[in-house]
Amino acid sequence: MYGKDLQTLVQYLAKLPGLGPRSGRRAALHLLKHREDLMHPLIEALTLVRERIRSCGLCGNYDTTDPCQLCKDPGRDDHLVCVVESVADLWALERAACFRGRYHVLGGTLSVLEGVQPEDLKIPQLLRRLQQTGIQEVILALNATVDGQTTAHYLADRLEEAGVQVTALAHGVPIGGELDYLDDGTLSAAIRARRNLVA
Amino acid sequence: MYGKDLQTLVQYLAKLPGLGPRSGRRAALHLLKHREDLMHPLIEALTLVRERIRSCGLCGNYDTTDPCQLCKDPGRDDHLVCVVESVADLWALERAACFRGRYHVLGGTLSVLEGVQPEDLKIPQLLRRLQQTGIQEVILALNATVDGQTTAHYLADRLEEAGVQVTALAHGVPIGGELDYLDDGTLSAAIRARRNLVA
Repeated sequence: MYGKDLQTLVQYLAKLPGLGPRSGRRAALHLLKHREDLMHPLIEALTLVRERIRSCGLCGNYDTTDPCQLCKDPGRDDHLVCVVESVADLWALERAACFRGRYHVLGGTLSVLEGVQPEDLKIPQLLRRLQQTGIQEVILALNATVDGQTTAHYLADRLEEAGVQVTALAHGVPIGGELDYLDDGTLSAAIRARRNLVA
Repeated sequence: MYGKDLQTLVQYLAKLPGLGPRSGRRAALHLLKHREDLMHPLIEALTLVRERIRSCGLCGNYDTTDPCQLCKDPGRDDHLVCVVESVADLWALERAACFRGRYHVLGGTLSVLEGVQPEDLKIPQLLRRLQQTGIQEVILALNATVDGQTTAHYLADRLEEAGVQVTALAHGVPIGGELDYLDDGTLSAAIRARRNLVA
C-alpha cells in the first residue's frame, strides 16, 4: 500500500510513548504534509540532540555539558540532594521551581518482579556522592507507587547508615483536588499527616 | 532546566498529532533512553522518507515512485475511481482490501468557514482525469462529517455533468456496533436504508 521507507518510519513513530500503529500513521502523514515546517526541523533537532546531549556523570540529568548546568550552578545548595526515579521527575520539580539543591537520578526503581537490583540503579553512585561531598539532607522524591516506595524504604535504611538526614515528599490532598475524587490511600495519608492550623 | 537543543526537540515532537508538551517531553526522554534502537533508526527513517517519498501526480498518494504503485498496478480496475479526502483514508480502504479500482485524494474538503474552494482541492485534476481516461464510476468515500458531505454533494453535481455514475459509501450500523451506543443520525440512516432479508 505504501513503500517500505514510509512503513519503516510508521513503525518507529509507533514506538514513541503515547503513540501506536494508528497514531504512528497519522504522525507520518502529518510530517509528509508539513515537510518544511515540521519534518525538516524535526530531523535537524533529533540530529543535534543525538550529537550533543549526554547523560550527566554526576546527577544523571541530560544536558550538552557534563557535569550538567544544574550540577555546575554555583547558586544551588550543595548540602541538599533530591533523589528522583527519572529525568522526567527532575524536570517536573524544576518546572515547579520549588527546590534549589542538587539532584540524583536513580534511573528506575528496585523491582523484585523485574529483577532490578540496587546495582542496576545509580544507588552505589549516590552512596559515593555522600562520602565525597558535604551532603546533609537527602530528599526522597520517588513516585508514590509500590516500587517507588519500596525503593524509598531501602534507600532510607542505607542513607541512615551513612549518617545523613533522610526526608520524603509529603503525601496528601493535591492542590485543587476534591475529596470526593480522591482514593482512600491518599485520604488516609492526608488524615494521618494532618497539621495544626492554630498554633 | 535542559539545554536549547533538547528544548527544540521537545517543541517539534509536541507538534505531532496526538502529542502535546507533556507527551513531547516523554517522547524526547524515551528517545534519549533508546538511542541505538529508536533514536538512530528514527532519524534514518525520517531522512529516507524526506529524500524518497513524493506525492503521486495522478492520485495524490505518497510513494517512492510517481505515478505510485497503486496507479501503476495493472491488476486494478481503471473504470472505477474512489475519491477520498486524505491519504489516511486511502490507506484505511487499502487495509480493508475491499476495493480494487483507482484512487483520487482530494487533499481536504470544501469549507465555507475556512475558505476552501474547489480549486484548493484536487477537484480540477479529478475532472481532467474523467475526460482523459475511461472512468465509468466514481465512488465518493468522503467522511460522514458536514464538510465531507457538502463536498460530496458538490462533487456529485459536477460529476453527473461529466456523465459518469456517481456512488457513495453506505451509511448504517457499523459491524459489531450496538444500537444503544449509536447516535440518532446513524440510526435514522440505517432505518432509511433498510434492506430486504427475504427476497
